[in-house]
Amino acid sequence: MLMESRPLLSAAHCDPIVAGTVLDQDGQPQPTQMPGERPLTLYLDKREIVTLMSLGQKPEALVLGYLRNQRLVENLRDIAAIQVDWEVGAAAITTLSGDAGERCDELLRRRTVSAGCGQGTQFGDQLESLKELPSDGFRVARSTLFALIEQVRTLDTIYKRSGAVHGCVLAAGSRVLHHVEDIGRHNAVDSISGLMWLEHASGADKLFYTTGRLTSEMVIKVVEMGIPVLISRSGTTEMGLDVARRCGVTLIGRARNQRFLVFNDPQRIDFNA
Amino acid sequence: MLMESRPLLSAAHCDPIVAGTVLDQDGQPQPTQMPGERPLTLYLDKREIVTLMSLGQKPEALVLGYLRNQRLVENLRDIAAIQVDWEVGAAAITTLSGDAGERCDELLRRRTVSAGCGQGTQFGDQLESLKELPSDGFRVARSTLFALIEQVRTLDTIYKRSGAVHGCVLAAGSRVLHHVEDIGRHNAVDSISGLMWLEHASGADKLFYTTGRLTSEMVIKVVEMGIPVLISRSGTTEMGLDVARRCGVTLIGRARNQRFLVFNDPQRIDFNA
Repeated sequence: MLMESRPLLSAAHCDPIVAGTVLDQDGQPQPTQMPGERPLTLYLDKREIVTLMSLGQKPEALVLGYLRNQRLVENLRDIAAIQVDWEVGAAAITTLSGDAGERCDELLRRRTVSAGCGQGTQFGDQLESLKELPSDGFRVARSTLFALIEQVRTLDTIYKRSGAVHGCVLAAGSRVLHHVEDIGRHNAVDSISGLMWLEHASGADKLFYTTGRLTSEMVIKVVEMGIPVLISRSGTTEMGLDVARRCGVTLIGRARNQRFLVFNDPQRIDFNA
Repeated sequence: MLMESRPLLSAAHCDPIVAGTVLDQDGQPQPTQMPGERPLTLYLDKREIVTLMSLGQKPEALVLGYLRNQRLVENLRDIAAIQVDWEVGAAAITTLSGDAGERCDELLRRRTVSAGCGQGTQFGDQLESLKELPSDGFRVARSTLFALIEQVRTLDTIYKRSGAVHGCVLAAGSRVLHHVEDIGRHNAVDSISGLMWLEHASGADKLFYTTGRLTSEMVIKVVEMGIPVLISRSGTTEMGLDVARRCGVTLIGRARNQRFLVFNDPQRIDFNA
């Protein structure tokens, strides 16, 4: 048997914030900061598969999470190395077998129907294959939720300095394990998925927080990570709630300032603690 | 020569808001409202091309704008009819030639590389083919911008009642011509693009407002609509600004409460008016 090994990662760095000067409503110049947004084209065994627009905080984790969530690579140990080069905006993924690009090619061809042109969704297929989360008695105290929401509020974020990004947090109780921000909600959640994959971390006793709205695709990704409690500063959509109901996710929205709303499965919350 | 004719549109209706009951942070039940989120699968001459998750306010306009912005149909007069059926979540698009599905099939196959799995972007290709907006002396007074921002603030929105949606507005001066909300920023902007297509409306003397962030893809779509001024309640990303610079879009961010920041091309704004 192969030992579980970690792929070689390039640990590429780029500055997530860009400084500039703008005019205010009186025509007066003001210094400003904005999030960087860089195209990162993924090459899986030399086969170009997608271009993601990213803040670039944790590009290797983003690549891993993308491959995992799109089911383009099955096991972490199949990946030999990920080499990110911001100079050319490319991430080269090398697998041990060296033929993942060809298999992916076939997979992408079959997916064309629903994936479409950058706006589509794998909704139907993914929903059918989702597994319900186990009812294993995992519970979280209201005070823990309040403490986590307060922790998140005090994080030093790109958002506070430049706006225009979304943040995701993986937490154990009120302890922040990972915090990733990115241009799109999906990149942030994919990056955390990639980090969990690297760490062989189970989601079963974790909480997931996002600044973004709880649309169906967001809830699907959290189910795929096996995390039973999803918290958002924002609200949920009807379909987000529908997925949470089918899969048994505790869905918490509008979480801020010692307040929140529980949209689904409140039995995991201890309101008296 | 053919007259410019309008396709037959089904004018399908669905309720954009769903009522429900949630528990608050004290475990007390509270009535709530959330935006509906429905899958709409597009069939172009019976060929399935994409599934969009939508609030469903203006589905025919969304379909038109999607076909236009993805360049799947070249002229409005090529489209004979759009029939949306929410019962089955399908939009059937019939073209006059009847073979757009086959051509689209070929187009989508070639696009697979960058379109990927629902998260990708046509960024490179689209950016190269974008035309710079003309410097035709179109100007807008600061007072008009303030008036428009105030108009938008007082609109009766799904957002105010249920959260979790983005809104887009097409305006002539401070007059709101179209207001569309949807689950994703892209659906809202595509819907307005579809409405403009139907009305043979020029963007050259219009303003575009969005609640969403000004990412590159957002700015690209506004350039494709030929609109010179883009206003957001939120901020811009580096790449959003980069596209605005290349194409000559006046980019206004953080617009609220008699304040805004001009990120690019302030010469179109009359600060003294």
